[in-house]
Amino acid sequence: MTEAWDGLLLGAHLATLQGDAGYGAIEDGALGWRDGRLVFVGRRADLPGAPERLADMVVDAGGGWITPGLVDCHTHLVFAGDRAAEFEQRLQGASYEEIARSGGGIVSTVRAVREADEDTLLAQSLPRARALLCDGATTLEVKSGYGLELEGERRMLRAARRIAQSLGVEVRTTFLGAHALPPEYAGRADDYIGAVCDWLPRLHEEGLVDAVDAFAERIGFSIAQTRRVFEVARDLGLAVKLHADQLSDGGGAALAAEFGALSADHVEHTSPAGVAAMARSGTVAVLLPGAFHVLRETTLPPIAAFRAQGVAMAVATDCNPGTSPLLSLRQAMQLACTHFRLTPEEALRGATVNGARALGLDDRGVLRAGLRADFVHWDVARPAGLCYWLGGSLARAVYAGGQRLC
Amino acid sequence: MTEAWDGLLLGAHLATLQGDAGYGAIEDGALGWRDGRLVFVGRRADLPGAPERLADMVVDAGGGWITPGLVDCHTHLVFAGDRAAEFEQRLQGASYEEIARSGGGIVSTVRAVREADEDTLLAQSLPRARALLCDGATTLEVKSGYGLELEGERRMLRAARRIAQSLGVEVRTTFLGAHALPPEYAGRADDYIGAVCDWLPRLHEEGLVDAVDAFAERIGFSIAQTRRVFEVARDLGLAVKLHADQLSDGGGAALAAEFGALSADHVEHTSPAGVAAMARSGTVAVLLPGAFHVLRETTLPPIAAFRAQGVAMAVATDCNPGTSPLLSLRQAMQLACTHFRLTPEEALRGATVNGARALGLDDRGVLRAGLRADFVHWDVARPAGLCYWLGGSLARAVYAGGQRLC
Ligand SMILES: [Zn+2]
Ligand SMILES: [Zn+2]
Repeated sequence: MTEAWDGLLLGAHLATLQGDAGYGAIEDGALGWRDGRLVFVGRRADLPGAPERLADMVVDAGGGWITPGLVDCHTHLVFAGDRAAEFEQRLQGASYEEIARSGGGIVSTVRAVREADEDTLLAQSLPRARALLCDGATTLEVKSGYGLELEGERRMLRAARRIAQSLGVEVRTTFLGAHALPPEYAGRADDYIGAVCDWLPRLHEEGLVDAVDAFAERIGFSIAQTRRVFEVARDLGLAVKLHADQLSDGGGAALAAEFGALSADHVEHTSPAGVAAMARSGTVAVLLPGAFHVLRETTLPPIAAFRAQGVAMAVATDCNPGTSPLLSLRQAMQLACTHFRLTPEEALRGATVNGARALGLDDRGVLRAGLRADFVHWDVARPAGLCYWLGGSLARAVYAGGQRLC
Repeated sequence: MTEAWDGLLLGAHLATLQGDAGYGAIEDGALGWRDGRLVFVGRRADLPGAPERLADMVVDAGGGWITPGLVDCHTHLVFAGDRAAEFEQRLQGASYEEIARSGGGIVSTVRAVREADEDTLLAQSLPRARALLCDGATTLEVKSGYGLELEGERRMLRAARRIAQSLGVEVRTTFLGAHALPPEYAGRADDYIGAVCDWLPRLHEEGLVDAVDAFAERIGFSIAQTRRVFEVARDLGLAVKLHADQLSDGGGAALAAEFGALSADHVEHTSPAGVAAMARSGTVAVLLPGAFHVLRETTLPPIAAFRAQGVAMAVATDCNPGTSPLLSLRQAMQLACTHFRLTPEEALRGATVNGARALGLDDRGVLRAGLRADFVHWDVARPAGLCYWLGGSLARAVYAGGQRLC
């Protein structure tokens, strides 16, 4: 029995997502794993022997569906404080100027993060990561971008790495120094970009950076400034991603495509030329319906064009304290269906295989022998149920690398 | 120590909701209860003695906020099957006609409920009630209305009563025979209303009916038909509620007010005259942002007029398989803030004291000595956090009648 599998799960249907379309459904399926990898994905009837002889542990799921572990490919979940007070002020009628004058906005999060030590950042961020995990997300991307100084950015990235150690989820870190202009650089955006370009190699050397991102927008950084950051990333061999065309069409998606970016994110205002460029470069469109919902935006991303040109669409929470206080990737999938009219299948692919692709990961996001044993057992009658229900706890069990984490 | 309290909770702030405005906040509060009722609500510093001498059990909350137990005053959570397949069809582009032809729509839920025995109805509905409970709802209203025949309506109401026994939450039942016209009565709506008026006294005699509701709408029942049902209710001394003016202004709110209804629900299209009538009769406006969200409606309820005229606003999930598959009252509060621009305080009052009022209950919805010991301990830094976060599990502990249920 040295060949025995570590685990074998029976009694549920599988949404494998194998192939380019459909759920890759296997009714009455079986899932076997060993050493953190899937070794069997198929029909129970096709198992090569009696379950208890194949595996050290046999689990009867008792119904429901198994999907790949979800991949939340765009979050800002490491931060200190929250902005519920600002949320309330806005609903009481305060203008953005009034909120800014009373110390609100992103500046308030930057201040809180600069004041927080690494342990505090970790302690405040862990419950958010745990909420996402227990809702099915086994891979989390986490961006820096609230330190906006070398030490603060480093603390955020280190806290992100420690989330992985604490919870057992996999965390991919993204350096987002070019998120916003810190107050001390007011009027000197080019100088600040110079600092960001200086920090990046140092943080990378410390093993803290898996990818590089920037906020290209009229209220963020220009295309030329973003290009400077991307060139440093390219020299370091780091993949890039971009907050692109969220509030206006600034040519962000096209720039991302030019650099072969893993993803262009938000993309509500991306032009047809931008979509075509993304299609050519294989850049994933990461849809973030949480911010769209909270900001009550009305311009939808060019979903039809993405479909027509074969641009892969991912869905993520964008978990952040200002525009998307979203602690559930499943709710992001619901919002993607409701607001963006994605089909449930597109939303599920967006939160699994396409989310993995937006992180440059090809070892997960699909149930297939040889890939990571990341999977979730859901209490739903069909896969579309994941997008249909709002609220509730539908994940009965969450496994990452063959370990049950929730 | 025969006078000892059963429990005393310390170490959290209280949002008592006492008074007509504000959270009624008490920082560093204390909450004592005995025999299912609150006996102390105040500052810890004002406790009449040492905690361990006052109560048999002392709980240190370790931070966060306590609110009254939430009251979900409008649900259809007893049903069989779900409509996730129809949700998916719609997103794949199917028209309502196509869905109806393929057996979808409310008719499919009616069919599933008619085929389900009472145990099946209970088994399928319990997880929904438990999700609402563990998200903070200690009182649930449950409507009939998918049986549309005496036996089916009775089974639904009996299953609703059994939810209370199973979970320890309080359930208020509402007879909604006049929800939709069953297929066998096609073209004979007046005859069907006659049958509904015949069933109501029988179900009431069995102790199954706490209030009576109808769906007054162009696609539902006329004002004259609704009036017939309400007259039977009045003769029985039963309170009424009404699905009013959801899709068009049909004078539903005015009719509800004429009968002194506890609430008029949905009310997106209620006219100024309807609002004025509700103000005069003290009828609560029950806002249901889940259906507004799922149906992507654009006409908001007349919130400003409700505020100006002093009409109390409640917020509820409307949990139902067709238009609001919502398993969290907290998410309904978030949607009420985002879509309807309620303030977090209005949303919290809507899900507590005004929800209780919409059910005719004055023994809950506020933290005050003498009222029921229904309360929730939340992991939030301020009360607005309840409306700010989407997803996640924020309820650390849920008590109803002094018993910890979740
Ligand atoms: Zn972002
Ligand atoms: Zn309803």
